Amino acid sequence: MKLIKNATNRLVPNAVNGQKQIPFMGIGKYKPTGRIFNPTIKSTADYPGDGNKIVKNLNEALKKSGLKDGMTISTHHHLRDGDILTNILFDTIKEMGIKNIRWFPSASFPCHKHLIPYLEEGTIHHIEGSMNGPLGKFTSEGKMKGVGVLRSHGGRYQSIQDGEVHIDIAVIASPTADPFGNANGVNGKSACGGLGFALADSEYASNVIVVTDNLVPFPCVPWQIQGNNVDYVVQVDSLGDPSKIVSGTTEVTKSPDRLLIAEYVAQFMEDAGIMKDGFSFQAGAGGTNLAFALFLKDKMKTKEIKARFIRGGSTKYLVEMLEEGLTDYILDGQTFDLDGVRSMRDNPRHVNTTPFTSYNYHGKGNFASIVDAAVLGATEVDVNFNANVVSHSDGYLLHGIGGWQNCLFSKCTILAIPSFRDRIPVILDNVTTLCGPGELIDVIITERGIAINPRRKDLLNALKKSSLPIRSIEEIQKEVYEICSGAPEEPRLNKNKIVAVVKWVDGTVLDSVFQIVQ
Amino acid sequence: MKLIKNATNRLVPNAVNGQKQIPFMGIGKYKPTGRIFNPTIKSTADYPGDGNKIVKNLNEALKKSGLKDGMTISTHHHLRDGDILTNILFDTIKEMGIKNIRWFPSASFPCHKHLIPYLEEGTIHHIEGSMNGPLGKFTSEGKMKGVGVLRSHGGRYQSIQDGEVHIDIAVIASPTADPFGNANGVNGKSACGGLGFALADSEYASNVIVVTDNLVPFPCVPWQIQGNNVDYVVQVDSLGDPSKIVSGTTEVTKSPDRLLIAEYVAQFMEDAGIMKDGFSFQAGAGGTNLAFALFLKDKMKTKEIKARFIRGGSTKYLVEMLEEGLTDYILDGQTFDLDGVRSMRDNPRHVNTTPFTSYNYHGKGNFASIVDAAVLGATEVDVNFNANVVSHSDGYLLHGIGGWQNCLFSKCTILAIPSFRDRIPVILDNVTTLCGPGELIDVIITERGIAINPRRKDLLNALKKSSLPIRSIEEIQKEVYEICSGAPEEPRLNKNKIVAVVKWVDGTVLDSVFQIVQ
Repeated sequence: MKLIKNATNRLVPNAVNGQKQIPFMGIGKYKPTGRIFNPTIKSTADYPGDGNKIVKNLNEALKKSGLKDGMTISTHHHLRDGDILTNILFDTIKEMGIKNIRWFPSASFPCHKHLIPYLEEGTIHHIEGSMNGPLGKFTSEGKMKGVGVLRSHGGRYQSIQDGEVHIDIAVIASPTADPFGNANGVNGKSACGGLGFALADSEYASNVIVVTDNLVPFPCVPWQIQGNNVDYVVQVDSLGDPSKIVSGTTEVTKSPDRLLIAEYVAQFMEDAGIMKDGFSFQAGAGGTNLAFALFLKDKMKTKEIKARFIRGGSTKYLVEMLEEGLTDYILDGQTFDLDGVRSMRDNPRHVNTTPFTSYNYHGKGNFASIVDAAVLGATEVDVNFNANVVSHSDGYLLHGIGGWQNCLFSKCTILAIPSFRDRIPVILDNVTTLCGPGELIDVIITERGIAINPRRKDLLNALKKSSLPIRSIEEIQKEVYEICSGAPEEPRLNKNKIVAVVKWVDGTVLDSVFQIVQ
Repeated sequence: MKLIKNATNRLVPNAVNGQKQIPFMGIGKYKPTGRIFNPTIKSTADYPGDGNKIVKNLNEALKKSGLKDGMTISTHHHLRDGDILTNILFDTIKEMGIKNIRWFPSASFPCHKHLIPYLEEGTIHHIEGSMNGPLGKFTSEGKMKGVGVLRSHGGRYQSIQDGEVHIDIAVIASPTADPFGNANGVNGKSACGGLGFALADSEYASNVIVVTDNLVPFPCVPWQIQGNNVDYVVQVDSLGDPSKIVSGTTEVTKSPDRLLIAEYVAQFMEDAGIMKDGFSFQAGAGGTNLAFALFLKDKMKTKEIKARFIRGGSTKYLVEMLEEGLTDYILDGQTFDLDGVRSMRDNPRHVNTTPFTSYNYHGKGNFASIVDAAVLGATEVDVNFNANVVSHSDGYLLHGIGGWQNCLFSKCTILAIPSFRDRIPVILDNVTTLCGPGELIDVIITERGIAINPRRKDLLNALKKSSLPIRSIEEIQKEVYEICSGAPEEPRLNKNKIVAVVKWVDGTVLDSVFQIVQ
């Protein structure tokens, strides 16, 4: 492994876990030349004629799938912090005496700290997928055997589709399923909404195991996962803790600063002329974003404006907008609360989307670039509008990328962030980890002012008469540095040890995450 | 090209249109070894950022797709005999001076006789897909330049998926679409129901053109065809004649003989114990089949029995059963009338299915074998229960296979047929063209009696106490031969010239169709 500088001058390895890498070449610069991954042709003659693919238990399904050392096993994160299945899965793999698994989740949650012993003793070799909280800390401290690979939701789809990551066994937690393997997340006691993050897994893995705690007679409708892609079905008592599956992240912020940011964002969208009949936006489920949606809703009602579509992660606030006729559709990649689940189940205008439809960069376009405005967060930004979403200024890797990189392709990408957190400035000279190149980030909105990327002369023009505090990013930075006594302390990093890499949406390597020196 | 005998002793060519062929080896005997077809990896950077893929007209879309001599162009048949688009498409190709196209429709209709001049002068080299009516006659008479290839709906999906047929340009008639290429058949003036027969085309073709006469703003919901698979969108005034798109095939028979057959079928399903709570069946849209569904419905109501699902082709009669609560679901591959279209659009229990879910033999199972009983037709059967569905006893090829071969995998396959037509016996010593091997055909129901395949001892046992006229097939044949003065005249065929082949669901060659000597 050799470190090389990519197009953003970041040091990245030319190989990761023995696999050759392409350094980031610039937005839209890398053109893939190969063909998508092609599974072997199956024959219905080798599957049960009555369509019943149920096997005794997970152990048997794994054995029939030919589980062996060094394989890649994928899971999805729709059960969020309520996921029990993934922990049981690795308990089972450990019992079977299997070693060196590459775990390929669509994201991880604090509940997965249960897996740290398996990372220590070698059942799991390394994680490719977000390493949130405890797993991120473990990784940052250089304790993981392999190098972590961080991908966006779209990048994960791309990596599977392109054959960059081949999944040997996909284990798909399915809140409802039939014996043929058709499955959905909108019904059952463990209902979580969509199952889109497991789509690529179901399409391209060599073996696909559907695990359910709510078996229904064929056909399971809707089939978000198609039984025609499934090998085995396993029944279990419980996939997880329902109270944590539909998590409590959907609380509107009460912080006056963050409410101000949210108000600025809504006002910006009005003043910039983005908020008009037939427009579209995406907002995450964080407290500031939820508040923004409420402010925007008021403005839309006042001006009698209707959106064409809102991109979820959905919450009850977006569902209310749909039900009140303020948007024609919610296009939803994941539901964050029970209202989201109910709406996706019952309302045909609340449409389940997948990383294929929304985010896959190696397709014939995707939904992300059609969205008029995306309102996102960040842990850090820099004066060139570059942003970080995975690590903090102390160097610790604590978050996944999610759909964040993919959403940067919207027509107007807004980062809504406090100017400092815990007296640590958020606008820096250089971000600790580069996750999003500045040329895709159009606006940074803080409680101290709004910085528009100088590339977006159209926006600068449109906002000329706005009452909003439009300022240069350097000016805002200077003010914050004065309050916080300058830049944060440099993290103490071992630059000889890469613990994880950040992939760009096209599979190239955008940045490296280094070991923390303790 | 050499003729060889396959596992059913039928003479089949070892090559068709220069492509090597595998002779039929028996049900479930041929095991594919390759990998599914893998398109090249695309980049969103090469597609319009605003998601607008509209081009000026069909000519421009074909040029951008790189149309050239000898290419394969696919269309679907959801517009049935109202299809204008396919004719306009080949008018355009002719104007462009392109030659030797392989036309790969999911089926053809009498309206496509417009294409005969193009077959004659070489714009179209040959057809792979059903050759119905006029195109069948043209083919039978040896006038087509290449050899026709007849595939079932599932076999068509399999051939595309497996890379046996590579589509250069797919042209997808879309009753509703958005500029990104998302499309459906449930809305718009040319609404036809589902678009499932174009699914494989959209997934595997090198270039995908969506043509619509009802453009809506993004997103077109539902997206039966995914814009993420689409290259170009073309707007036209009209895709076809709405009165013929939703055709008039859905008339219940008035013939006393056929009504008797229909009644026997319903009675058979009751006496055999198939009609029970949670059961499933498939019936086509022919007059006898519709009558059967009505008889069965009465029986279900009397006994208070509810089906789990009914497989469409849907008609108003099946829709009524769904709406009256006699089935949980309709799983529908194509809608035959306006009630079917409305129901698929508005009722989430009327589920759109595709050849991938229902029929593809080279998948991890499919829906067809889960169905308790399939009631089908045939042009001829023989005393070994082999059946023909594409040609008549005079040797003329006049029909496509449709989903017929795929449905043979149901748990009980019933052919409901008159014992003779126009004084020509239907039960023969040998069928003119073999489309379905007898081991998959369980019951033949005629107005003169019911023959159960001797392999199905379970059915013979179950029907022992039935009042139905259960007879041997030989006995029925003898009676019919007496009425019709023996077997039909042998067709006059040129055994040196194969005009078409019949593929089995696994891509092997089941039989040959020979030129008629006039």
